[in-house]
Amino acid sequence: MNEQKLASLVNEMTLDEKIAQLTQLATPFFKGASDGGQITGPMAEMGISDETIGNAGSVLGASGAKEVKNIQRKHLEDNRLGIPLLVMSDIVHGYKTIFPVPLAIGCSWDLELAEKSAEIAAREASASGVHVTFAPMVDLVRDPRWGRVMESTGEDPYLNSEFARAFVRGFQGDDLTNETNRVAACVKHFAAYGAAEGGRDYNTVDMSERELRESYLPAYKAALDEGCEMVMTAFNTVFGIPATGNKKLMRSILREEMGFDGVLISDWGAVKEMIPHGVAEDEKEAALKALTAGVDIEMMTAAYVRYLKVLVEESQVDEALIDEAVLRILTLKEKLGLFENPYRGADEELEKEVVMSSAHREAARELAGKSAVLLKNEGVLPLRKEQNIALIGPFADSGDILGPWSWLGSKEDAVTVKEGFLQKIDGAKLTVSGGSDIETISEEQIQEALESARDADIIVLALGEDSEMSGEAGCRADIRLPEAQLELIQRMKQLGKPIVSVLFNGRPLDLHGVWDETDAVLEAWYPGTEGGAAITDLLYGDVNPSGRLAMSFPYSAGQIPVYYNHYNTGRPKGAPDAQERYVSQYLDIPNSPLFPFGYGLSYTEFTYSGMKLSSEKMTCDQPLNLTLTVTNSGTVAGEEVVQLYVRDVSGEVVRPLKELKAFEKICLEPGESKEVGFTLIEEQLRYHHSDLSFRSDRGTFIAYIGGNSRDVMEASFKLEK
Amino acid sequence: MNEQKLASLVNEMTLDEKIAQLTQLATPFFKGASDGGQITGPMAEMGISDETIGNAGSVLGASGAKEVKNIQRKHLEDNRLGIPLLVMSDIVHGYKTIFPVPLAIGCSWDLELAEKSAEIAAREASASGVHVTFAPMVDLVRDPRWGRVMESTGEDPYLNSEFARAFVRGFQGDDLTNETNRVAACVKHFAAYGAAEGGRDYNTVDMSERELRESYLPAYKAALDEGCEMVMTAFNTVFGIPATGNKKLMRSILREEMGFDGVLISDWGAVKEMIPHGVAEDEKEAALKALTAGVDIEMMTAAYVRYLKVLVEESQVDEALIDEAVLRILTLKEKLGLFENPYRGADEELEKEVVMSSAHREAARELAGKSAVLLKNEGVLPLRKEQNIALIGPFADSGDILGPWSWLGSKEDAVTVKEGFLQKIDGAKLTVSGGSDIETISEEQIQEALESARDADIIVLALGEDSEMSGEAGCRADIRLPEAQLELIQRMKQLGKPIVSVLFNGRPLDLHGVWDETDAVLEAWYPGTEGGAAITDLLYGDVNPSGRLAMSFPYSAGQIPVYYNHYNTGRPKGAPDAQERYVSQYLDIPNSPLFPFGYGLSYTEFTYSGMKLSSEKMTCDQPLNLTLTVTNSGTVAGEEVVQLYVRDVSGEVVRPLKELKAFEKICLEPGESKEVGFTLIEEQLRYHHSDLSFRSDRGTFIAYIGGNSRDVMEASFKLEK
Repeated sequence: MNEQKLASLVNEMTLDEKIAQLTQLATPFFKGASDGGQITGPMAEMGISDETIGNAGSVLGASGAKEVKNIQRKHLEDNRLGIPLLVMSDIVHGYKTIFPVPLAIGCSWDLELAEKSAEIAAREASASGVHVTFAPMVDLVRDPRWGRVMESTGEDPYLNSEFARAFVRGFQGDDLTNETNRVAACVKHFAAYGAAEGGRDYNTVDMSERELRESYLPAYKAALDEGCEMVMTAFNTVFGIPATGNKKLMRSILREEMGFDGVLISDWGAVKEMIPHGVAEDEKEAALKALTAGVDIEMMTAAYVRYLKVLVEESQVDEALIDEAVLRILTLKEKLGLFENPYRGADEELEKEVVMSSAHREAARELAGKSAVLLKNEGVLPLRKEQNIALIGPFADSGDILGPWSWLGSKEDAVTVKEGFLQKIDGAKLTVSGGSDIETISEEQIQEALESARDADIIVLALGEDSEMSGEAGCRADIRLPEAQLELIQRMKQLGKPIVSVLFNGRPLDLHGVWDETDAVLEAWYPGTEGGAAITDLLYGDVNPSGRLAMSFPYSAGQIPVYYNHYNTGRPKGAPDAQERYVSQYLDIPNSPLFPFGYGLSYTEFTYSGMKLSSEKMTCDQPLNLTLTVTNSGTVAGEEVVQLYVRDVSGEVVRPLKELKAFEKICLEPGESKEVGFTLIEEQLRYHHSDLSFRSDRGTFIAYIGGNSRDVMEASFKLEK
Repeated sequence: MNEQKLASLVNEMTLDEKIAQLTQLATPFFKGASDGGQITGPMAEMGISDETIGNAGSVLGASGAKEVKNIQRKHLEDNRLGIPLLVMSDIVHGYKTIFPVPLAIGCSWDLELAEKSAEIAAREASASGVHVTFAPMVDLVRDPRWGRVMESTGEDPYLNSEFARAFVRGFQGDDLTNETNRVAACVKHFAAYGAAEGGRDYNTVDMSERELRESYLPAYKAALDEGCEMVMTAFNTVFGIPATGNKKLMRSILREEMGFDGVLISDWGAVKEMIPHGVAEDEKEAALKALTAGVDIEMMTAAYVRYLKVLVEESQVDEALIDEAVLRILTLKEKLGLFENPYRGADEELEKEVVMSSAHREAARELAGKSAVLLKNEGVLPLRKEQNIALIGPFADSGDILGPWSWLGSKEDAVTVKEGFLQKIDGAKLTVSGGSDIETISEEQIQEALESARDADIIVLALGEDSEMSGEAGCRADIRLPEAQLELIQRMKQLGKPIVSVLFNGRPLDLHGVWDETDAVLEAWYPGTEGGAAITDLLYGDVNPSGRLAMSFPYSAGQIPVYYNHYNTGRPKGAPDAQERYVSQYLDIPNSPLFPFGYGLSYTEFTYSGMKLSSEKMTCDQPLNLTLTVTNSGTVAGEEVVQLYVRDVSGEVVRPLKELKAFEKICLEPGESKEVGFTLIEEQLRYHHSDLSFRSDRGTFIAYIGGNSRDVMEASFKLEK
């Protein structure tokens, strides 16, 4: 259907039909659902009529080819104009083949594999009838208390932007009508949800507009530039107004400035939540504000259904606004090919073939291997095949390694660490014991663990947070491992044997009680379906660790927020003029995080040398080339992430001490050297000035290159204009 | 000298003389100083010429009638035009008679005594030759990690504003020519220094302009409305630009909008610190930016002296800007009467008479008694005269109870807790032991403490932070008592005797290890010169505790920031619609602070009843009267702080759950009842909208009245417009 036909279709619709099109309901509302449209509890209280359900524009959380086809068929039977439903679901890091959580993927610095993971998720999802996924989440995060940091790719605007693009490419590809391989993406949460105060989910966000534009908006913009079809609103306030009712944010910034003309959907219940937020007295005002702000689809509350018609009748809402919203939704349906084939990719046979295929599992294993970050290794890793291993801890044989937002994944399908070891072990002895539960420990468990470690050459502790401890609403004020597990470490330590900690969790942790106490620390995150296999690949050195932190590990919760791209202050610690006391510091802990952004160890070592700039100056027309040589000075092959940072020494506003501008992941054989080159152009030196203009200034810059954000070589240059 | 004569004087000055007038140097630079103008170290590196010193406009940190007169005399001998020096010092909570730290004074909710404390400080300071004090500090604070929270009156814009006014009235009175009683005040730190990120001093501040205006600016404005003569810039950035070079903040907001035409001074070194901040390439650019922003006096760096002349010659700076700054400084000198009497109040005889007079000490004792906050009391307080007391802890006999910013106070002059007890004890036995040092503890100390408590009926632990652990640059990531003292509590607890904790510190602490472990907790803050006397007045019930927290005590550092006047979010915990998991909360700790704003116990109890509103609605012309009855339902007389909060249920932007609008401190005899009345007018319901306009909206409001911000009665009303 072309644009004109879609517009005619809008014209044919009654106002009620249009409003229903703007409403998204969960699967249980629909006749074709497995429970046959029986609504109970809060959903029943929404008071949605059969007529609205029959005209609803989209369904939330449906999956499985058979059920989706059933829902669509029944829906079309009732729908006067034959407008198919859009099927949307949260396919965040895999459909059934679960990849590592996005924060872990961020640590891979591997855009190709990230794209591939999204493509695989899209393939499984589209064969299962899904049309749109509520991903990628690209919120910049600086507070590990927040449970949803696991869903982001970290603290850097550039790295987040690159991953945003990769995920959108992976989900959408070039052609959305590719019905068995692609789904539409929905970037979220617009905007700045990651800055929830106190790291408490849904909490207030407040920042200057300049900071919003400089640090938080780039990744959403990158997703849109990549053609992302949809945007989801954030739960939080921006400039004092909830994002979902924020006209400046949505109409001025998102639509006018960023040029987004796709579908804007509220997050779950966010329209009605303007009432507790205190910017709407009732659902009617909430509906008015959301539509005025430009929200096309209301998810799971009924403010539009109940009040948009009255608002039109009272001339508070121009029906043209509703028409625009409907047209955007119909346009997306058309792009997805739903008018031609409302069942799109849904295909039970194909579904069986592709979902959890061995190729998909292999990709998940590969990405999990690239995502884990080796934080410490005092000569105990890799393990040797002849070593007797005592595998201990609540994650020793747990399938709870998929992480939050993996609702279609099955813990039973996950390869546990124990199963990973069983694939590797050959002749040596493996004992496995729980040691503790996640948050409790008994003397019996400890004794069993001590006994199991009696003949071991080395102890591997599989520790962490259960998946409920992060994710949405999964916020913790204390970000250490639970006490029970810290006690387990203490007790195991008394054996005097080397200990390797493998950590399964969704946030940077305060590693007190772990990093000093154990000989190696491997941050495995939630590695997904093939987690146990990937982790033992790494432990035995079949894969050399190459993950690099996408988010700083704070020294303690009292140091939050800590992130590499901060400002210098007027009294930086350690500066030449710095006085001993009167500098910006804590008296009791360092300013630096325990592990900085970009950090991660390998089983080999890389040395950097010969950093050269093509010139001491660059101009708008004359880029700067930076080269240096990286050498694998160890004895095994390995991958290194070569990172380019830039500092603008003096700006019109304060500028970060370092900003990631480019990176390259290279693989080097033992003894091999490689020249790595980067090109910097003037555009990369632009920033938001106090008048919000985005431009560069002449002056001095410092380029830093290194294997993490702390340990770098440097050279300065000038931008001349 | 009238305005015209001052302008003529400016015309007579050479450019060099004018620039020197804009420069403030520390005491050692001046010939008349006790060390005779011998400059060493960093001060020597400033490269200040004798000519500049001879023409400098002001001196920093001088005190003592004899020395100040000497400095002024020598200065006038050298000064071609006979322009006297301004003498400025940090007289923050007392000159030599030290009052409680400002955060403690905030907890008194006693504006009259606060004003009196400032008046006493002004009297001692002016007799000692000081003309201007760098106080009050009115930065709104929400992060107890920050060392300077002790210098603020807390987390509430209204309470801070009232104290700002009281302090300015106390310092300045009605007539600055009252040379033996008054000094000019300098409100600081403009603006929003209290919001330093991570509670790390000097760190980045970022917030929306709306939040700045709504929460942070009111207290500075209140000080200016009260006639405060000077303003000091903040070290931090505002909207990405250091306050000291921030033209929008200083020219547009402070001077144009707020109408401030007094002297604006940089904080120590803050002009040059624009270089490390990264907004000035060198001192020349720093000088240009500071003067352009409107900074009249550069404190302790030499950018003006070195570069303003060149900048004028290069036409980058209009000399008229310099003239304006000089005129403002000369005008202040005239207001202080310095042209008539350059020695002003400096008088050795008067100094001896007033400084540390018994009346002053008595006022300090009274205010300390009103500032301490009783947080817990399980029936152990007040102490009874017949009880044998074991006084234990590093603050048992310490004079380090004056707190930061009391550089002229002497620890030797302070009444220690032991001395306080000796004044009270009568027949019963008092034993005193250290128990531990601030951060270390030995078994010997513990045994001595245990031994000292053998015959005691009750143990009083005097614990806390030494004064270096807070104040400027005194930031702590861990805000618990030091481990050594927590261990002391544990060991003393084993005796099974009742324990009273008295805490000496400068910030709200995480009271884990204290509040559950001991039977009573009295937050003494740093109570000042008469601290020990005031605290034992309270412990024995000679004074009934009436202090109420001006800043929330967080449950733990992981809860920061926590403050009563926060927003509701869209998913508040405990709301009728709230789901169990998907609400704004931490999984591991409550959302509420351990002790909320406004909280504090008494030895009696107060009951609230019969809250009545004069009407269910108010208008712009028709105020609302609120009344209720407070009854002392206990057995001793006591003071209660009756607090009125208002919530704007629905605004154009989100509105705090509660906002303090008024309070009244009342004293009730046992059994006595009193009707307390408040009047609300429309002006009090105004707030900053998204377009920054300050106005009220029609709609529903809730009034809350109670003895703290948590435990309140409520009634709703409507504003009609």
